[in-house]
Amino acid sequence: MDAFYHNSSVSSLESTDTAGKVITCKAAVAWGPGQPLVIQDVQVAPPQKMEVRVKILFTSICHTDLSAWKGENEAQRAYPRILGHEAAGIVESVGEGVEDIKKGDHVIPIFQGECGNCMCCRNQKTNLCQKFGVNPLKSVMVNDGKTRFSSKDGSPIFHFLNTSTFTQYTVIDSACAVKIDSQAPLQKMTLLSCGVSTGVGAAWNVADVQPGSSVAIFGLGAVGLAVAEGARVRGASKIIGVDINPTKFPKGKAVGITEFINPKDLEVAVHEKIVAITEGGVDYSFECAGNLEVLREAFLSTHTGWGVTVLLGIHPSPKLLPIHPMELFDGREIRGSVFGGYKGKTQLPKLAKQCMCGTLKLEEFITHELPFHNINEAFQLLVEGKSLRCLLQL
Amino acid sequence: MDAFYHNSSVSSLESTDTAGKVITCKAAVAWGPGQPLVIQDVQVAPPQKMEVRVKILFTSICHTDLSAWKGENEAQRAYPRILGHEAAGIVESVGEGVEDIKKGDHVIPIFQGECGNCMCCRNQKTNLCQKFGVNPLKSVMVNDGKTRFSSKDGSPIFHFLNTSTFTQYTVIDSACAVKIDSQAPLQKMTLLSCGVSTGVGAAWNVADVQPGSSVAIFGLGAVGLAVAEGARVRGASKIIGVDINPTKFPKGKAVGITEFINPKDLEVAVHEKIVAITEGGVDYSFECAGNLEVLREAFLSTHTGWGVTVLLGIHPSPKLLPIHPMELFDGREIRGSVFGGYKGKTQLPKLAKQCMCGTLKLEEFITHELPFHNINEAFQLLVEGKSLRCLLQL
Repeated sequence: MDAFYHNSSVSSLESTDTAGKVITCKAAVAWGPGQPLVIQDVQVAPPQKMEVRVKILFTSICHTDLSAWKGENEAQRAYPRILGHEAAGIVESVGEGVEDIKKGDHVIPIFQGECGNCMCCRNQKTNLCQKFGVNPLKSVMVNDGKTRFSSKDGSPIFHFLNTSTFTQYTVIDSACAVKIDSQAPLQKMTLLSCGVSTGVGAAWNVADVQPGSSVAIFGLGAVGLAVAEGARVRGASKIIGVDINPTKFPKGKAVGITEFINPKDLEVAVHEKIVAITEGGVDYSFECAGNLEVLREAFLSTHTGWGVTVLLGIHPSPKLLPIHPMELFDGREIRGSVFGGYKGKTQLPKLAKQCMCGTLKLEEFITHELPFHNINEAFQLLVEGKSLRCLLQL
Repeated sequence: MDAFYHNSSVSSLESTDTAGKVITCKAAVAWGPGQPLVIQDVQVAPPQKMEVRVKILFTSICHTDLSAWKGENEAQRAYPRILGHEAAGIVESVGEGVEDIKKGDHVIPIFQGECGNCMCCRNQKTNLCQKFGVNPLKSVMVNDGKTRFSSKDGSPIFHFLNTSTFTQYTVIDSACAVKIDSQAPLQKMTLLSCGVSTGVGAAWNVADVQPGSSVAIFGLGAVGLAVAEGARVRGASKIIGVDINPTKFPKGKAVGITEFINPKDLEVAVHEKIVAITEGGVDYSFECAGNLEVLREAFLSTHTGWGVTVLLGIHPSPKLLPIHPMELFDGREIRGSVFGGYKGKTQLPKLAKQCMCGTLKLEEFITHELPFHNINEAFQLLVEGKSLRCLLQL
């Protein structure tokens, strides 16, 4: 714990019972598109029915935070707001009706909740949740349509992606809090809250990568590298990484990528190169770049007959899928993947245990560590492509 | 056997061995786009290496024949040509190297062959064949790039879809001939050569329709109705048929469709109606119309999270899939289906046996029967939407 943490108003909470009371703590608040986050006092109301209040110990930043911080999608803007959705923490108190989580439990927040009761939650084929699914337009709690965060003057501060983790305390729906083994190292568990689960799950749950198979990954950010890590653990024999930034390659090698392609070095289309070096195409490709041209290359890089392309990137362009209907008759498939197909509350505890056994090399994804009040510096590292995950300690 | 058959030059072949000799017989030859087929003598050369010569006893007409007859796709035109790809017959002789089929075997020709040796044939995930896959541009045999059909003057008559069945004798690659039980009724087996296998297989192999599930079928031609029949056999509890032609509905009812939607009767989009009557959408939808707007309706008619849309229709428009990449994150999938996912030589014999036990109501699909020389009349019935399958007896 760094000096910032000990000096904050949070430190006293170890000895006093805060349940049912408003907590004043530090948060990084976004006040406008691209404006530096402001570390300031915020008031955090007690959790309501089926909500939990979590003391966040670690958080990190992913591209969705970056996009929201920049306000890239005007319809999704809401200020002031507490961003952040990748974190780990300890439950401070729970609201009425919460039975599966109690004070002191170690939890990771999930932006893609699991209510357990809707038609989707009751269906094993999907991890969508009709009540607490990811919704970038949502900025208030479901219970009462209000916020649990406020400024000193009582004016609301908005929520983000069911989570809002750039704060020492947050309130989330219990459907969005995953209880994990109390022995699991919370620093590393932070990565399961979004990026690593998203990538590993895409390989394991959505594509179901088989031993000895071939894989191509387009875009080697944290998610793309997590796909590689998932493919490596599954025993894929060929894992091709595609990125225009060759500084990603050494890290890629560490998580199992066997060969790299920099499209800038090629005189042919990427898919032609991949088809040539894989006897007709890879078994699975993953689009982690959010670019339609890249998506088409990923699609054509798979083998006819059985190739599966998994879509992970966010595509803001209004353009349609760059695929002709008749091309589906070549037997290639394309699937979307949200949060790696994981039903968070049901399945992440097991993933956390697997990580405790060293199945995944989580440490490879933490490239930087900074105290929470350096959060704007952490954003800059991501903007410049220098970090995979910068762990912020609150 | 009608008079036409007995009067033809074929009748004498029962008593003489024609192996290795050119056979002169009757065929229906297409001489130009939309021109009535001409019943004429053609010469059929003996089968070459890995080819078989088949005496066609029954053939029928599907929309792909219609499209080729009209010459809708200029690049695919080739005249004179013997169309037809749905049939059943008896092997007259086999070429060098053919070991799995012999003279006298009952066979059905398949436009989507199975060589058994290529990467696709060796992969259980696909029924594509890299050597004998369906190819509308192909009009000659693989062995020598020539035709086995010719006019009296020796000029070539082109092949069609690996099959060419509008003739008393045809030569096909053994990879495109499926040996079936000699006790199976050849009239009905004709339907397994294309339309019924395509529809039933889409439901069984590609969508894998589960008992108690809900299904929507867009386009109630023979293929769409075969999808319904497949869904009925699998125990789907709700099978919705969508067509703008209500004369299809009585037949649809006979093959298990539980409710009908005529888009012309609705004031809302079809998918809105389907979502409303199925608790959020069907489990599976099938596009059998070859229309992009219909395809989008079919896609949106399925339930978020697990809905699967199977594409069976041929889409000649150059327009791309009417789906935005982000829509894939709703968990709906879309898959192409060629020949119902059946590996013909490996899997159709079992389907034929199932039909012998009455699993499928094949008789519902034969709406008309005519002698071969009435083939132009049979085309007209299909053009006017009056027939599902008109069985032509050679």
